[in-house]
Amino acid sequence: MISIDEARARILAGLRPTGNEIVPLAQAAGRVTAAPVLARVDQPPQDVSAMDGYAVRAADGREGTRLRVVGSAPAGHPWAGTLGVGEALRLFTGSIVPAGADAVLLQEDAEEADGQVAVRETVREGRHIRRRGQDFLKDVELIPRARRLTARDVGLAAAGNHPWLSVHRRPRVAILATGDEIALPGEPIPPGGIVSSNAHALAAFVAARGGVPLVVPVARDDANAIAAAAEGHGADLLITTGGVSVGTHDLVQAGLARRGLEVDFWKIAMRPGKPLMFGRLGATAVLGLPGNPVSALVCAALFALPALDALAGLPGDAPPTVPAVLATALPANDHRADHLRARLTAQPDGIALATAYSRQDSALLRMLAEADALILRAPHAPPAAARERVQVIPLAPLGL
Amino acid sequence: MISIDEARARILAGLRPTGNEIVPLAQAAGRVTAAPVLARVDQPPQDVSAMDGYAVRAADGREGTRLRVVGSAPAGHPWAGTLGVGEALRLFTGSIVPAGADAVLLQEDAEEADGQVAVRETVREGRHIRRRGQDFLKDVELIPRARRLTARDVGLAAAGNHPWLSVHRRPRVAILATGDEIALPGEPIPPGGIVSSNAHALAAFVAARGGVPLVVPVARDDANAIAAAAEGHGADLLITTGGVSVGTHDLVQAGLARRGLEVDFWKIAMRPGKPLMFGRLGATAVLGLPGNPVSALVCAALFALPALDALAGLPGDAPPTVPAVLATALPANDHRADHLRARLTAQPDGIALATAYSRQDSALLRMLAEADALILRAPHAPPAAARERVQVIPLAPLGL
Repeated sequence: MISIDEARARILAGLRPTGNEIVPLAQAAGRVTAAPVLARVDQPPQDVSAMDGYAVRAADGREGTRLRVVGSAPAGHPWAGTLGVGEALRLFTGSIVPAGADAVLLQEDAEEADGQVAVRETVREGRHIRRRGQDFLKDVELIPRARRLTARDVGLAAAGNHPWLSVHRRPRVAILATGDEIALPGEPIPPGGIVSSNAHALAAFVAARGGVPLVVPVARDDANAIAAAAEGHGADLLITTGGVSVGTHDLVQAGLARRGLEVDFWKIAMRPGKPLMFGRLGATAVLGLPGNPVSALVCAALFALPALDALAGLPGDAPPTVPAVLATALPANDHRADHLRARLTAQPDGIALATAYSRQDSALLRMLAEADALILRAPHAPPAAARERVQVIPLAPLGL
Repeated sequence: MISIDEARARILAGLRPTGNEIVPLAQAAGRVTAAPVLARVDQPPQDVSAMDGYAVRAADGREGTRLRVVGSAPAGHPWAGTLGVGEALRLFTGSIVPAGADAVLLQEDAEEADGQVAVRETVREGRHIRRRGQDFLKDVELIPRARRLTARDVGLAAAGNHPWLSVHRRPRVAILATGDEIALPGEPIPPGGIVSSNAHALAAFVAARGGVPLVVPVARDDANAIAAAAEGHGADLLITTGGVSVGTHDLVQAGLARRGLEVDFWKIAMRPGKPLMFGRLGATAVLGLPGNPVSALVCAALFALPALDALAGLPGDAPPTVPAVLATALPANDHRADHLRARLTAQPDGIALATAYSRQDSALLRMLAEADALILRAPHAPPAAARERVQVIPLAPLGL
C-alpha cells in the first residue's frame, strides 16, 4: 500500500495543464490565468480629486482668501486650461485636477457666491488628490499567471483595460460509472439495482472546480462495454467509478487495456477508499475511483481535486485543512489514514468543535452530504481525547 | 446615519424569494431547494453485503464447517431462492443477501473448491450486512428546503431517485453603471475618463452567488438616460453604481423617480462606502451602491450578498466572519464601522494573522483584489494592540 501523498504526487506527475484560450472578460471569473495580466493604463489616469470641492493653488488656499471660480469640471469633463494665481476650479470626486493646481479645497470648507469662493479652512498641498497611477501604473502586473480569477480580479482586469483574458481551457472530464446494478434517477431500476449517485455528484464537483463534465452512459460489467464507453470524449481526464462487485477495477482495467491503457493500480493506506487506479489512455489521463459513494467522493476530494486543479493550470495542492477540537474521544487508528465524517460547530475561541458521526460506514451517503468536514486521522494515530486538537478538511469550500 | 445591521434588515424586509422552477438534477448544483427532497426509495433497497464473500445462515457458519455453494449473485443479479440449511451463496459488495441468510462469510475467511466452501472463521449474525434503508428509508427528508445544493446533495438526490428538483429561479440582476467618465474595457476612453470596473466585478459576484447578471449599457450622467437604462430588464434586482460625481445618487434617484421609484436613501455609518440607496421600481428592487470601486465591492459584500441570497430563497445572512489576530496595532476608530483590507497568514494555532494594508484609500482596487479579508472595526472601537483578537470577513468564500 502507498500513502495518500505518494499517490497524489504520482497523479500530478502524470498531468499537464490544458492549453490556453482567450475568453471575454465577462466570462473569465473562476478561470485560471495562463499569462500575467499587465495594466494597459495608469489608474487613476491623471491626478484626480478624492473629494468634491475646488482645485486651487496651495499658496492661495489660506483661510479667509477669496478665489475666482473659473469653471466646473465634473468627472469625465476635464478642464483644459492651467489654473492661475487667485483662481479655483469646481471639482468633484474623480475630476481631473487641472495643471497649475496642487491642492483641493473641500466643498464643506468653501462658500461659493457671485463667481467667487471663500476659503473657510486653509488647504494642504497635495491633500485630497489621488495621484496618477496611485492604484497602478501602466505595465505593472495586476494579476499573476496561474491564478483562479475572483470577481475582484475581473474588476481589476477591467480597470486595467482588458476586454479579453488568456486563460487555461476548462479541463474536459468524462465520468463513467460502471455496474450492472446501476440505474439513472427516474429510470426503471433493475431487480437488486440501485440508483446511480456517483456520476452526478462527481459531475457537479468537476463543474464546481472549473471543469466541463461529460457524464457518459453507465457501462455494464463487461470489459468490451467499458472499453467502448471510455473512448471518443476528447477528455483530458476520464474518471471511472467502479460498480460494487469484486474485480470491477480489474474489469475497468481489462476493458481499457484493450484500448492501450498504461496503468498504475494502487492500494492506498486510507479509509474510506483503498483501491485507486491511475493511468493514461492516449491523451486522456484515467482516474479510477471506488464504487462506494462515500469512498468515491472522499477519494475525489483527495485525488480528483488536485488533478482537476493541475489540469486547470494550478499547483494541484491537497485540499486545505483547518484546526478543530474534538467533541468526543477517538480510538487509536490502524495503519490506514482515516477521514471521519464530522459536523463542525463554531466556538467562541474561533476553533471549531468537530463531532465525528458515530457511524462511519462508507455506504452512508446521507451522512456525508450532511457532514461539514472530514477529521484526519493519521496512520497509527494514538487514541485522542475530547478537546484534543485535530486537523479537518472542510467540505463545502472544495465545491463538494 | 444608520447602522449596517439596520440597513441590511431594511433591505431584507423589502425582498421576497423568487418563484420555483424544475431543473434537471444535472443542473441543480448551487441552486436553492424550493421544497424538501424526500427519498423515493429505500437505500440500500434490500439487505446487501458490505463485503465480498458468501451469504450463509449464521448457525451454519462455524469454523471448520463445509457448505454447499448454490450459486453466485453479483450486484445487479440477485438470487431468487431461499438459502437452505448447509448452503452458501457467492456474494459481492452490494449484492442482495438472499432470504434465509443472516450472515456473511468473508472471502478471506473462506476456501471454495468443488462446489463447496470451507468456513475458516466463525461468522457473526448480521455482520457485514448493510440493512435495507440503512442510509435512508423511503419518504425521509434527504435535503431540507432553502438549502443551496452541494455536489454531495446532488449525489444524495440522485440516490433518492430524483431526476428533477424544484428550486428557486435564479435571481435576475440588472447592473447599471453610471457616469460620463466611464468607458468599457477595450473601447475608446474619453478625455479624463476611466475604464469601467464595477459592473464586471459585480456581474461576476452575482453569478458566483447563483444569480443571473445582466450588465446594461453605461448610463450617462443624465436623469433621462438613467431612467431609460433602468427599465425593461425583467430584473428582480437592479444594482446601480454611481459615477464619482457629487449628486450622482440624486441623479439616479431623479431618473428612477420618473419611473415611479419608491426610494429610501441612507447614509450608513461605515467605511468604505456611506451612501446607499434602496427602493423599489415596480417589481424590481433597487440597490444603489457607491461608484468608488472598493466602496462598491465592500457594500456588495455587506448588502448585495444578503439581498441575492434572500432572493434565491436563503435567509440572507451577513457575510460570515472568523477570528484572527492583528499583526500590528490599530488606532481607535471613529463613529463609522470600518472594513480594513488585510492579508491573512495561517498560524500554527489555527487563528490567522491579519495584516491590514497601511493604505486604506477606497480607490485602491488592486489592493482589494489582493486582500484576503476585511478586518471589522466597530464604531468607536478603542485602539487595538498587535496580537489582539479581531473578527474578519474572508473575501474569497463570498464569491468576491
